[in-house]
Amino acid sequence: MQAHPHGKYNAFPPVKLADRRWPTRVIERAPIWMSTDLRDGNQALFEPMDGATKLEFFEMLVAIGVKQIEVGFPAASQTDFDFVRRLIDERRIPDDVTIEVLVQSREDLIARTFEALDGVPRAIVHLYNAIAPSFRRIVFNAGRDEVKALAVDGTRRIKAHAARHPDTDWTFQYSPETFSMTELSFAREVCDAVAQVWRPTREAKMIVNLPATVEVATPNVYADQIEWMHRNLAYRDSLILSVHPHNDRGTAVAAAELALLAGADRIEGCLFGNGERTGNVDLVTLALNLYTQGIDPGLDFSDIDHVRSVVERCNRLPVHPRHPYAGDLVYTAFSGSHQDAIRKGLSQQRADQPWAVPYLPIDPADVGRSYEAVIRVNSQSGKGGVTFLLERALGVTPPRRVQIELGACVQQIADTTGREISEASVRNAFETEFIRDGGLACAEAATHEVTLTWRGQAYRVACGQDSAVASDDAFVQALARATAARVGDNVESRHCEVSSTPDGTAFAFVAVKVGDGGETFGAGRGRSRVQATAQAFASACNRAFTVSEAEDALDDTGRTPATPQIANARELAAADAV
Amino acid sequence: MQAHPHGKYNAFPPVKLADRRWPTRVIERAPIWMSTDLRDGNQALFEPMDGATKLEFFEMLVAIGVKQIEVGFPAASQTDFDFVRRLIDERRIPDDVTIEVLVQSREDLIARTFEALDGVPRAIVHLYNAIAPSFRRIVFNAGRDEVKALAVDGTRRIKAHAARHPDTDWTFQYSPETFSMTELSFAREVCDAVAQVWRPTREAKMIVNLPATVEVATPNVYADQIEWMHRNLAYRDSLILSVHPHNDRGTAVAAAELALLAGADRIEGCLFGNGERTGNVDLVTLALNLYTQGIDPGLDFSDIDHVRSVVERCNRLPVHPRHPYAGDLVYTAFSGSHQDAIRKGLSQQRADQPWAVPYLPIDPADVGRSYEAVIRVNSQSGKGGVTFLLERALGVTPPRRVQIELGACVQQIADTTGREISEASVRNAFETEFIRDGGLACAEAATHEVTLTWRGQAYRVACGQDSAVASDDAFVQALARATAARVGDNVESRHCEVSSTPDGTAFAFVAVKVGDGGETFGAGRGRSRVQATAQAFASACNRAFTVSEAEDALDDTGRTPATPQIANARELAAADAV
Repeated sequence: MQAHPHGKYNAFPPVKLADRRWPTRVIERAPIWMSTDLRDGNQALFEPMDGATKLEFFEMLVAIGVKQIEVGFPAASQTDFDFVRRLIDERRIPDDVTIEVLVQSREDLIARTFEALDGVPRAIVHLYNAIAPSFRRIVFNAGRDEVKALAVDGTRRIKAHAARHPDTDWTFQYSPETFSMTELSFAREVCDAVAQVWRPTREAKMIVNLPATVEVATPNVYADQIEWMHRNLAYRDSLILSVHPHNDRGTAVAAAELALLAGADRIEGCLFGNGERTGNVDLVTLALNLYTQGIDPGLDFSDIDHVRSVVERCNRLPVHPRHPYAGDLVYTAFSGSHQDAIRKGLSQQRADQPWAVPYLPIDPADVGRSYEAVIRVNSQSGKGGVTFLLERALGVTPPRRVQIELGACVQQIADTTGREISEASVRNAFETEFIRDGGLACAEAATHEVTLTWRGQAYRVACGQDSAVASDDAFVQALARATAARVGDNVESRHCEVSSTPDGTAFAFVAVKVGDGGETFGAGRGRSRVQATAQAFASACNRAFTVSEAEDALDDTGRTPATPQIANARELAAADAV
Repeated sequence: MQAHPHGKYNAFPPVKLADRRWPTRVIERAPIWMSTDLRDGNQALFEPMDGATKLEFFEMLVAIGVKQIEVGFPAASQTDFDFVRRLIDERRIPDDVTIEVLVQSREDLIARTFEALDGVPRAIVHLYNAIAPSFRRIVFNAGRDEVKALAVDGTRRIKAHAARHPDTDWTFQYSPETFSMTELSFAREVCDAVAQVWRPTREAKMIVNLPATVEVATPNVYADQIEWMHRNLAYRDSLILSVHPHNDRGTAVAAAELALLAGADRIEGCLFGNGERTGNVDLVTLALNLYTQGIDPGLDFSDIDHVRSVVERCNRLPVHPRHPYAGDLVYTAFSGSHQDAIRKGLSQQRADQPWAVPYLPIDPADVGRSYEAVIRVNSQSGKGGVTFLLERALGVTPPRRVQIELGACVQQIADTTGREISEASVRNAFETEFIRDGGLACAEAATHEVTLTWRGQAYRVACGQDSAVASDDAFVQALARATAARVGDNVESRHCEVSSTPDGTAFAFVAVKVGDGGETFGAGRGRSRVQATAQAFASACNRAFTVSEAEDALDDTGRTPATPQIANARELAAADAV
């Protein structure tokens, strides 16, 4: 065998379509959705659903708003026959829901199908036969006329059976299976012949469903095929034009969307893309694609995790972590710049404004997912994700410099361990780095005075009323003056911010400059603003002393700072400015 | 919250593109592939790869033929920096492979990047900045001019650094990140300004990469955007136009394919679609989509399971069972009509003819998968799959009637157990049903004579030479005549076929008609044709006696045959004729 024996494949020929219109159109409303989870999806499972499982799935489909549900192939499977009977006998079909069943063009199968449907208030009877040249040659050894006659004959039989059950509101659906591989003129010929027998009207339309039984070309070709049929079918205004795209080339969603532009009214598919081989088109993705364009899809995925759990259990197949809208990873961002942008977007998003959060095409809350899951932190993350986790852990937003330094600390942990970073790790890193013990400590904090100790020697600093921000600054300046005298070096207060967490804890960030060193931040918390501020001041000084000592130990080149955190912090600060 | 607060989303505006050309085009050759598995893919993992894992992935990418590989973001991650150094220092980059690294527009990051690349024979330096309106407003609080200046400034810095390393063959790549959400005129303005600084030539092209950082519209809109840029960019003949589609709407593969129609030369993506959130476009699907259109993709997936296993292990993420070309379920068919068509197609496919097996867009052998995995049997299957499994188990093809009856037996087992049917189950069902003990037995088979027993009483029947088919028929007729006399009823021989399995065992199928009953088949096997035929005759008679007794017990309506197998067999025989 050659390494690439691609020569044995033929390219699919393009469609000669003069003046195609679909590329200029936009989708403006939802199509009719038809779920074939219980038929096409079910037949593709290792272990097809039993009746109880089918019923659970059916009821979930009803709950999310699917109005047309293909429930089985009752003439070919006893399980399906029994399920259809159960739906009818137990009156489980809501008034606005229509069940659909599949059947082939044979009298005994059609009779059995109507036996299954006896007494149903309304139903779609779905006739199919494969009409593509390769199927005529390889599978049936039949000519065009025989294939067309089979479709017409089945239609006539179904019409006759339907007439014998006048209390049911019947809809007829014909699928020229393998449509996507069929000569367009012949597909039209068969569909027209079938419609000629059924005689649909504008009031009682029939469904013509054009399957991409196997996806065989780029999705624009399928759109061309659909537009050609849309423009050329007889009885067009008495037809519901439906599509049934499979996903062999990974473009079923696109094919369905372009088909809507090309004139389709209805889409058949499965939740999360179950179905033979690569599956049918995914109705969840299609619906939420409309939703995020401001179009009501008519399907409710406000609790997508519930829908997913039912589907996964019934199908015994997983939904992939990267599956659009529903995967475990799709509302996460690991990269630092993504996390930073998401954090900014979430904080600026207003409820009355159009959704515009970077990297999130949908608000996770709209599908029952939470923001909490949005940001994950690993070695490829920067400060954005770290800050997000810290905000969740502490209930406050640290100053920008603290975010940057903490990001560097956490990145180092991630680089070393190679693992995802939890909220607890971020909190631990924060507390280790920014709430720092050392020579300076806050021994006691009363309302108007705090007691500090410097290397065990106590001294007191008075503070004002424990209320206004202005007094926080004044208080830190007082702390700095008193401390400078004790440590025998210049200590300046450079920054102070104090806030309260939702549970009432005071949280303070203070920056100091000690001697010739740079600004250094510290954090503190406590029952009062005074306690938190004094603690933050002590942390800042203790950190400054450490850095100062470390910098004294720098080698000649001056290139390598003593703590890797600082180098990383500088780098990240730069990167972050983009 | 409303059930469907879709009103908070805006539709993406269509592109005003007069006389668009891409819908009339077809893809005729493979693009340049760029794998960003080690950068965009890696940054989106719970646990990013360590150096050893990156190296394994890199070597696999080289082995399948990827020529451009983005290996990391060395200025932002020590792991990435070390990995780039290792590739260079250990001379692990083949002569026809170019590594690529990502960098933002900051002097220190660019300097660090060139430090990582020092001594590389050739490399692509990839500069990016986000330019979309929402990013300018929300993330950077910057105007158009600042955003453009950032790109131009970075380009200038990279050009200066590159000039200081003249021994390396440098290629420059610029990505206006968030391109798909950006005003086209501004995207062009930025790209043109960057190119104006870099000054690409036809001999030394630069890469302009247009990301769908977030997929925000149907893929035809992305194609319009790409065609607009293709037609309007300055220096177009000195540019390699690249795309980088993400999969937020599930249409990344389509977007990439339509972008190729629209003028793109190059595609960035990941194997099996890894990457932030819903992932990057899947290069495997894209390549095999080309392959199945007769176009050499330039990538070797002849052992796709190996590639998949490396990717799954490195990424610690699964490939979904329905993933195109690679999933566990994509070369299987459970539905009876699909199985039947595949079986016929496989048996008729000739090596020198274009591939045309129903339901299989690619020959599984071309990606190292086997036919054996193609057909699975469950309660939704018909005779096609059953026969396929039986052919594999026995080495012979049973007559059509036997296929149908066996299909019904197996379906009953599947319906009852609700589980997938194994090859062993099919063989057991066949042997239980068609190799039947009873009143009649073949006691001994010599070359010219067999000894049968009827209810323990022996009798002998002569046979001719153990060679020609004609003599098989004559032999069975002799068996029938001799047996009729013993059992006291009319016994007619109706059918006999004998074949040899690959291991030399003789396998016979015989049909008889006993009394007023219908034709009944039996099977037999043995060391010789005579033995197999006599055994098959005995089996057929024993089955006929059983059915005859059962039919005598039918109730008045005559509707319910005694064995469900027979009813199912009739139904399936009908269904199968389609």
